[in-house]
Amino acid sequence: MKDIVIRKLSERGVELMAIAAIVSELQKPYNPDLTPEVCLSTVQAVLDKREVQHTILVGIALDTLAEQGHLQEPLCSIVGEDEPLFGVDEILALGITNVYGTIGLTNFGYLDKVKPGILRELNNHPTMVHTFLDDLVAGVAAAASARIAHNIFRKSSPQR
Amino acid sequence: MKDIVIRKLSERGVELMAIAAIVSELQKPYNPDLTPEVCLSTVQAVLDKREVQHTILVGIALDTLAEQGHLQEPLCSIVGEDEPLFGVDEILALGITNVYGTIGLTNFGYLDKVKPGILRELNNHPTMVHTFLDDLVAGVAAAASARIAHNIFRKSSPQR
Amino acid sequence: MKDIVIRKLSERGVELMAIAAIVSELQKPYNPDLTPEVCLSTVQAVLDKREVQHTILVGIALDTLAEQGHLQEPLCSIVGEDEPLFGVDEILALGITNVYGTIGLTNFGYLDKVKPGILRELNNHPTMVHTFLDDLVAGVAAAASARIAHNIFRKSSPQR
Amino acid sequence: MKDIVIRKLSERGVELMAIAAIVSELQKPYNPDLTPEVCLSTVQAVLDKREVQHTILVGIALDTLAEQGHLQEPLCSIVGEDEPLFGVDEILALGITNVYGTIGLTNFGYLDKVKPGILRELNNHPTMVHTFLDDLVAGVAAAASARIAHNIFRKSSPQR
Repeated sequence: MKDIVIRKLSERGVELMAIAAIVSELQKPYNPDLTPEVCLSTVQAVLDKREVQHTILVGIALDTLAEQGHLQEPLCSIVGEDEPLFGVDEILALGITNVYGTIGLTNFGYLDKVKPGILRELNNHPTMVHTFLDDLVAGVAAAASARIAHNIFRKSSPQR
Repeated sequence: MKDIVIRKLSERGVELMAIAAIVSELQKPYNPDLTPEVCLSTVQAVLDKREVQHTILVGIALDTLAEQGHLQEPLCSIVGEDEPLFGVDEILALGITNVYGTIGLTNFGYLDKVKPGILRELNNHPTMVHTFLDDLVAGVAAAASARIAHNIFRKSSPQR
Repeated sequence: MKDIVIRKLSERGVELMAIAAIVSELQKPYNPDLTPEVCLSTVQAVLDKREVQHTILVGIALDTLAEQGHLQEPLCSIVGEDEPLFGVDEILALGITNVYGTIGLTNFGYLDKVKPGILRELNNHPTMVHTFLDDLVAGVAAAASARIAHNIFRKSSPQR
Repeated sequence: MKDIVIRKLSERGVELMAIAAIVSELQKPYNPDLTPEVCLSTVQAVLDKREVQHTILVGIALDTLAEQGHLQEPLCSIVGEDEPLFGVDEILALGITNVYGTIGLTNFGYLDKVKPGILRELNNHPTMVHTFLDDLVAGVAAAASARIAHNIFRKSSPQR
């Protein structure tokens, strides 16, 4: 199923390297030796999680259906326009963000507000609906950052 | 939008009185004077919340699309069969359950496991897909119970 | 740190076997071959998680301080009496419950309401304060059940 | 109890005006007419919520006990140093952030990372422990921002 998720992300304009680039930007200040390869393999590890796969499939389905006008109203307009009070996208992303614990929460919120890199492209796309996808990608990047933080910390404090 | 939500719930087989009946069953032990009218008006109050409305619309859309075969695979089968590891329905319901604070969480989990009244009917329906709806209804009932608990407690301890 | 957590649980009256017994009761209907050894090793695996360890330490500290009267008022009374509207214990437990995804949520709520085995003993203890501990233990048991469900399902559907 | 919470916040160095200033900064771009008075009264409204009051009392208690060395080890050091993998502070703040729905989540994460105004002061304090307090204050500011967004949007779209 992971392959399907990666293919769907790609079809919607998101390559794993673009997510890895956000992870790198987030974690570099704390970890100057972090390589792009580690960032990418960590994104891959997040996508191994069943919970993450399911959530991405649901979010992309809703975006696509809204784009095609195949959701009933008023939902179609709400998703299509990413109405400011619509919070279902954040709820879904929370399920991803938390797979490596709540320390991912801060990075998720930051990314969702500042929207670096691919997140800005998704958000500004002239025709495609990315109401869910930008939050999902921010969630994956935040979870990957949390995973890197866990690994670094564990190595540096073996005594606990 | 609340009217649309109530109509959609009804189309999917859920009348507000059936939700109120669950609330009554949950809260009666703690509050013997609780009337069906109060339970119903509390369910109505939960449905006033924008967050709740959005979440119900999304969940019902996903159930209906899975039922009609209009979700892509593998998502269509996952939702259609309510695969045991699928947790997106619980995540969505959590957004409803928490509108009156985390004390709704316990009741949500209990209802989702024991499945009294309308929840059992939804879960055992021979042809309709209710993967999301049973969790959403449990979430509304749990939130309504939390609201009643808040109101009772506030009256009984005005000094705090 | 895991050893410290296990020792503190024991000092507060909770042996890992008592948690494993709840897991066994929850999962037996779906998995008749489940052994006590697997339940116990799964509880151990949940306690390997840093997030779980931290949360248990915080919850036990708050219970103990309330018991000794070392929290300031009004918090000391609120925790000491497990006031019905106090939901911080459920929030903390949520951080444990979710370590293997949101499918743990349902079991957590069920356990927190029905309070089987050790949970009932904790809740009815005549002198000790277990406001946080019963939720934390329910959270660990729910997370362990989720982990078992994940493992069973993965084995039975290798094709996905 | 709200008075006690406001007094404790003040004792720990947080005046409501400092929280209102963060809210103003967050919401001004979307709402140029927003006055300091509205920001302050919205912060007050967030503090009316029982859930918020309880959570703040718990967080401040833990900070204070860590500061005084009255938590047992290893928890005292973990809280005292705000160890990078410690996520209990974020979990608690989540309970506050969500009182007006999940749209508060993004602002919480942003504030927790960028740490404007009083958040930076708390975080950089040379002697006091603010491991929980900075997250709690960010949570209150994020919830207040969500409440303002809800109110603005409702006024501007009465038709839904």
